[in-house]
Amino acid sequence: MTKQLKGIAASDGVATAKAYMLVQPDLSFSQSKIQDPDQEIQRLHTALDQSNSELKLIRDKAVETLGEDEAQVFDAHMMILSDPEFTGAIETKIKDDKDNAEAALKSVSDMFIATFEAMTDNPYMQERAADVRDVSTRVLAHLLGRPLPNPALIDEEVIVIAHDLTPSDTAQLNKKYVKAFVTDIGGRTAHSAIMARSLEIPAVVGTQTITQDVKADEMLTVSGLTGEVTVDPTPEQIEQAKAEEKAYTEQKAEWATLKTAASVTADGKHFEVSANIGTPKDLDGVLANGAEGVGLYRTEFLYMDSAELPTEDDQFKAYKQVLETMNPKPVVVRTMDIGGDKHLPYLPLPEEQNPFLGYRAIRISLDRQDIFRTQLRALLRASAFGNLRIMFPMIATIQEFEQAKQVFLEEKDKLIKDGVKVSDSIQLGIMIEIPAAAVLADQFAKRVDFFSIGTNDLIQYSMAADRGNEHVSYLYQPYNPSILRLVKHVIDSAHKEGKWAGMCGEAAGDPIMVPLLVGMGLDEFSMSATSVLKVRSLMKKLSTTEMAKLSERAITESISNDDNKKLVEALNL
Amino acid sequence: MTKQLKGIAASDGVATAKAYMLVQPDLSFSQSKIQDPDQEIQRLHTALDQSNSELKLIRDKAVETLGEDEAQVFDAHMMILSDPEFTGAIETKIKDDKDNAEAALKSVSDMFIATFEAMTDNPYMQERAADVRDVSTRVLAHLLGRPLPNPALIDEEVIVIAHDLTPSDTAQLNKKYVKAFVTDIGGRTAHSAIMARSLEIPAVVGTQTITQDVKADEMLTVSGLTGEVTVDPTPEQIEQAKAEEKAYTEQKAEWATLKTAASVTADGKHFEVSANIGTPKDLDGVLANGAEGVGLYRTEFLYMDSAELPTEDDQFKAYKQVLETMNPKPVVVRTMDIGGDKHLPYLPLPEEQNPFLGYRAIRISLDRQDIFRTQLRALLRASAFGNLRIMFPMIATIQEFEQAKQVFLEEKDKLIKDGVKVSDSIQLGIMIEIPAAAVLADQFAKRVDFFSIGTNDLIQYSMAADRGNEHVSYLYQPYNPSILRLVKHVIDSAHKEGKWAGMCGEAAGDPIMVPLLVGMGLDEFSMSATSVLKVRSLMKKLSTTEMAKLSERAITESISNDDNKKLVEALNL
Repeated sequence: MTKQLKGIAASDGVATAKAYMLVQPDLSFSQSKIQDPDQEIQRLHTALDQSNSELKLIRDKAVETLGEDEAQVFDAHMMILSDPEFTGAIETKIKDDKDNAEAALKSVSDMFIATFEAMTDNPYMQERAADVRDVSTRVLAHLLGRPLPNPALIDEEVIVIAHDLTPSDTAQLNKKYVKAFVTDIGGRTAHSAIMARSLEIPAVVGTQTITQDVKADEMLTVSGLTGEVTVDPTPEQIEQAKAEEKAYTEQKAEWATLKTAASVTADGKHFEVSANIGTPKDLDGVLANGAEGVGLYRTEFLYMDSAELPTEDDQFKAYKQVLETMNPKPVVVRTMDIGGDKHLPYLPLPEEQNPFLGYRAIRISLDRQDIFRTQLRALLRASAFGNLRIMFPMIATIQEFEQAKQVFLEEKDKLIKDGVKVSDSIQLGIMIEIPAAAVLADQFAKRVDFFSIGTNDLIQYSMAADRGNEHVSYLYQPYNPSILRLVKHVIDSAHKEGKWAGMCGEAAGDPIMVPLLVGMGLDEFSMSATSVLKVRSLMKKLSTTEMAKLSERAITESISNDDNKKLVEALNL
Repeated sequence: MTKQLKGIAASDGVATAKAYMLVQPDLSFSQSKIQDPDQEIQRLHTALDQSNSELKLIRDKAVETLGEDEAQVFDAHMMILSDPEFTGAIETKIKDDKDNAEAALKSVSDMFIATFEAMTDNPYMQERAADVRDVSTRVLAHLLGRPLPNPALIDEEVIVIAHDLTPSDTAQLNKKYVKAFVTDIGGRTAHSAIMARSLEIPAVVGTQTITQDVKADEMLTVSGLTGEVTVDPTPEQIEQAKAEEKAYTEQKAEWATLKTAASVTADGKHFEVSANIGTPKDLDGVLANGAEGVGLYRTEFLYMDSAELPTEDDQFKAYKQVLETMNPKPVVVRTMDIGGDKHLPYLPLPEEQNPFLGYRAIRISLDRQDIFRTQLRALLRASAFGNLRIMFPMIATIQEFEQAKQVFLEEKDKLIKDGVKVSDSIQLGIMIEIPAAAVLADQFAKRVDFFSIGTNDLIQYSMAADRGNEHVSYLYQPYNPSILRLVKHVIDSAHKEGKWAGMCGEAAGDPIMVPLLVGMGLDEFSMSATSVLKVRSLMKKLSTTEMAKLSERAITESISNDDNKKLVEALNL
């Protein structure tokens, strides 16, 4: 029966396909005594073989998508499958005790697990217990005819259904087959949503109940534009979805023609439309979408993807690659933003009651100047290879900025004395994501070269509402006049001192926000690479004088987020 | 040798006395075989007798200061001391095994503890294990001649030295003997600091090392005005401290003459100086200090001091008592502010990553309207007995205020229809403690009757720094121009609509902040009752026109918290 669900539109596009349940199946079984041990051993071997070829497939895909290191765990699993001590013990149990294969597998696995876990003086062997547990689950799933789902195994067009998607699930999605995904939980700013936009896979998240509302292989239509999901659609609904899909594809084709165009409004004003990146790998998307620069390079991935603090040379190489590739286009590099919800295994941070209000970003950098100076030296050395702008995250006071700048100047002097070539035109700016900094933007503007507004944090702190907390998610209000006033004050303050102001939060690519920001005169918009062309296309329809009037109303007349959403929607862009 | 320490001045006053170490002593001992069991048994009995009379004393004091319930644990301890099964077993051990008393006590206690702990089906008996452990520690301390410290045992003039003070430690401090206290950790807003101000005991907190820097009975001078502590002072330093103590006492006497005076500036402008309370018991201090009203009644204590949700009648009684006592002076009642760091055992809240940015205060009240309506009904019924003003905490958006007001009006209508008498002049206001509300104060001012600025939270969110987190405590900056700008905008917005603005955070009683707030035209200052007379005295020295100029400079010229601190200090008030 046709069912309609509404979730959060997380990645643009429309798709129709059958459901692939990326959901753990029920693996309960009953223990029984069997009559024919040979036949039961045959069943066991079939399951072992199926598990083995499945693991080989998953392993090969994992090498491609996650890298050799991450894939090694599957080698360990295959070794267990081919270990005669393991399989032999299960066979013996079937033969001697007449246990059914499921029960035999379980009791042998349990024994192996207990043995490994008891090796408390050998952490390596202890970890093998988890491998045995994983392998045993996989074989059991085949015995029961309910194989474990895995994104790597998908080989036909589907819509992936999951409670939530982990980063590694998402990395393994193959665009060729995965037409869309739909999840129970998550929001627009969740990792999986960001990945979906970067992969250009339509996605709807936060439906609450999709994993219960759909069964494997049932048909679905999904609109990542509206957040609507239809389970078991009527032929008319399928037709409608196909038409929407076609319209969207055509629109994308039109956007593609804008790849080499400048970002200008209907009345000819130019804005800089840039892209956010996490690693040099993301540059492909930046170039493919014709971004005018990198507006935010999140360097924390350099730290998070490493087993220890990245060396000055490691960092230098990454920064140089990004700067050279983009040259002469500007690259805004944000210094390390660790803490809050981002942790490093090799850098223990204090346990905190409220980590988002704690020791993070520039607060750590100013305290741990060893780490900070290494990063600044790597950036300074790379500056010779392109157009570098550095910005400091989580600046709350002018003293913090001046301290950070002082450290920067010291390292610059040292390098120059050592004869290292560094650029003489590096801009130094700050993220505006703390309300106090936004309020004092006029004073900051006299001291910095630029601002970049980080809307996620600015909203979170201004509203005193954790953006990841579902109980207060109604307070994530980017269009609230209070937020817009802070943004306006930041832009005006920059301009008064001849500086520029950008925005690198999710909001910079939001079709409701863009007209308001154009009206306020924001200079630079930095967003997911996949939003660049859409925003460029939107800007073509806007008149700056009209939008200035609109944003003035949004700030002085409106009293709510909804008021302002309606104000922009009424433009029918 | 004389040592100087500097901590945080937490409660005014100056004192000189010897140190009382409220620090757990070293209770290690060596096990040995004794020659004379009778003499050893005698030692044991002396220690048992000492423990018993000590417990009796502690128990009696605890009844006075903490109440009968809290004191019962000491009865349980005394019962163990007089239990022949317990003491007899120790004696036997000494006699038969020739163990020294310490060792015999230890092995018998361990056996009792193990026996009690094994009674897993009898939680009552299991809890007795903790009692035996406590009693055994106390007797051991006497055997070793290193008795456990306890605030109830102090019977001469001392300065209490502790790593930190628990609420129950603080409650037991006797003003007659405890001349001051000094701790290693804590800040001005810690519970112990607030209690010290309420008890008018000088206090210095956060010295880091006081427990290591001073020994029992060493002389100390402590200034709760400057945060300075001198260990083993010279005769000149003692003389100096005595002079400061005398000057402070005289100043307090002068303040006392202001008890019935109005709070007016040198140029004759009147401000309302009110007090904060947590329970009706606090009214004594309010009246004793001549406060002009209650500026903040924190009703969450009604919920926290209860085993279940307080009934409408329970609440009504408390509110009525406060309103009647203060009548016709105004009482500002804040509706329940639960969540964040305040929890109720009977109201499970979600586990949150960042509780200060989570489900709390009005967010709970609007969600759990059953609780909210009960509180509003109790307040409405009490309104007939005095001058009631209601304010909602943690308001972020205008919609939240309008929803809360709607609920209030519905309950008011219902009561009126039921013939209940309610006041027709109840003012409805909001706390300004979320940056978004401060920024949009002009719009709020059209809808509310008043504002009360909560500085602790406003600073915490504006700076994105948890006020309880020592790693970011440098960001607790009440005088930062960004904070002052928000405060000014709130005050100006209120006045433009003919409404009034108050402040009920710690800052309202802060001698640096008061001149700035007078300059900005804040209407009402609400603080610890013990700060009322000091602030009234300070106001007498201020000219509103001069302070208006000063606060304008603080907002437009200063760039830091320190700049503004110096600006006010230069006035030499």
